[in-house]
Amino acid sequence: MNNRTQAPIGIFDSGIGGLTVVKAVMETMPNENIIYFGDTARVPYGIKSIETIREYALQITDFLLKRNIKLILIACNSVSAVANQEIKDYCGAIPVLDVVEAGALAALEAPSENHHIGVIGTLATIGSEAYDKSIHSKNNLKKIYSRACPLLVPLAEEGWINNEISALVLHEYLKDFKDKNLDSLILGCTHYPLFKTQIEDYLRDTNTKVIDSAISIAKMANALLKSQKLINQSTESGVFECYVSDKPQRFQALAERFLGKRLNRIEIVNLK
Amino acid sequence: MNNRTQAPIGIFDSGIGGLTVVKAVMETMPNENIIYFGDTARVPYGIKSIETIREYALQITDFLLKRNIKLILIACNSVSAVANQEIKDYCGAIPVLDVVEAGALAALEAPSENHHIGVIGTLATIGSEAYDKSIHSKNNLKKIYSRACPLLVPLAEEGWINNEISALVLHEYLKDFKDKNLDSLILGCTHYPLFKTQIEDYLRDTNTKVIDSAISIAKMANALLKSQKLINQSTESGVFECYVSDKPQRFQALAERFLGKRLNRIEIVNLK
Repeated sequence: MNNRTQAPIGIFDSGIGGLTVVKAVMETMPNENIIYFGDTARVPYGIKSIETIREYALQITDFLLKRNIKLILIACNSVSAVANQEIKDYCGAIPVLDVVEAGALAALEAPSENHHIGVIGTLATIGSEAYDKSIHSKNNLKKIYSRACPLLVPLAEEGWINNEISALVLHEYLKDFKDKNLDSLILGCTHYPLFKTQIEDYLRDTNTKVIDSAISIAKMANALLKSQKLINQSTESGVFECYVSDKPQRFQALAERFLGKRLNRIEIVNLK
Repeated sequence: MNNRTQAPIGIFDSGIGGLTVVKAVMETMPNENIIYFGDTARVPYGIKSIETIREYALQITDFLLKRNIKLILIACNSVSAVANQEIKDYCGAIPVLDVVEAGALAALEAPSENHHIGVIGTLATIGSEAYDKSIHSKNNLKKIYSRACPLLVPLAEEGWINNEISALVLHEYLKDFKDKNLDSLILGCTHYPLFKTQIEDYLRDTNTKVIDSAISIAKMANALLKSQKLINQSTESGVFECYVSDKPQRFQALAERFLGKRLNRIEIVNLK
């Protein structure tokens, strides 16, 4: 048995949205130990310069590497878009997966009738065209339809997930996708899995598969750990450690909404 | 005539919301020259440390002082809350007004039956209790009811100002105010004047006066310039110069929505 199997999986995001990735990893691999870092003091990353995003991402990577992790999952779309390669270089032999690559691959693996893929995300993610680039680097026949949905993050953070307001907002954002014959729609923001059921309901009369990047990256992580014989063989539930750089108002309730369960302990760490 | 009368008024905000203050100043004093600085590269300020907000605010103050302004209006609630005194000290003889003080004073001047004042703002502004402190420093008999309304900024930036979604969101945020016998409700965020008519309609059956901090600070600025004999006596329309630290997607349309008119030229300045 590889003695690295019990090492934790490191997962990070600019804020707490990445807890949807933690949730998906816990559901896919309940025995894995997990360390999460949410850079809540410096969120959002999307509006910062590429240099700053890279600097912050490497600080967090360093924090995780010191905790002896066996795999890093980048749960942040902005970091995935601009700092992916830097993190891989920094990590050496420790493997690194990111949500953009995971979402793009899942969309490419979905049954394809029309070669049309939809992407929704924040203004920064859609503006960066990160999903377009990732998809086209693997298959340049796909036509991408994208739309920024800036209301969805604050809606999720208010907890207005499945009410009249979220239904109207989703209708406004998604109505133009209905006649695009999309094979799949990528939820390109860590907050969006909270709306997955409502989005699937809204697109029910189309043949569009909704791609939850959090689940996609959890499945990729599982496959990678298996192939490297790094799966934790313990039969006990994994330990979850949660670190943030700031703990704003209402944080606990918010974090638990993303994680989908109680969160007993959150530690504040200043990386600067 | 004081030869300083033709000097511009400097107005700044962490982003472009402060253009609602520019609009109010243009309407109150159409002959005044105005220089605006929006720190769009580093917005939002509310989630940053007090030290960082002070550092950024003084950089902008310095930028404006070098342009020979005769008055500074702080259009940013976060800066007003934590860097007001530092900016006054830095400016010496140049007068400084801020939106929190202006909104608080306007609320205190409104007819009062019940000594109840409502405040709405971002999570950061409401969490800072800046309006509570400003009001109670002048009159500690007032009872303050406050509510953070995090959906309103992205709604304003989407341009969803007077539609079914904004009506539902405002109902959700304001319904608890209806039975509080508020004398006044302060719009404690530079974006909120865009919803003023809808908010007044919603509160029509109460005796609540809606306080638009942008108009309040414009009136205070007018009174101050008069008292210091610094009103621009020109009969021509004032010149407006608009500087930002970054020009994100859709910026022009967004800026014009806040300003309420065409914006011919925006210059990008890096303060770092």
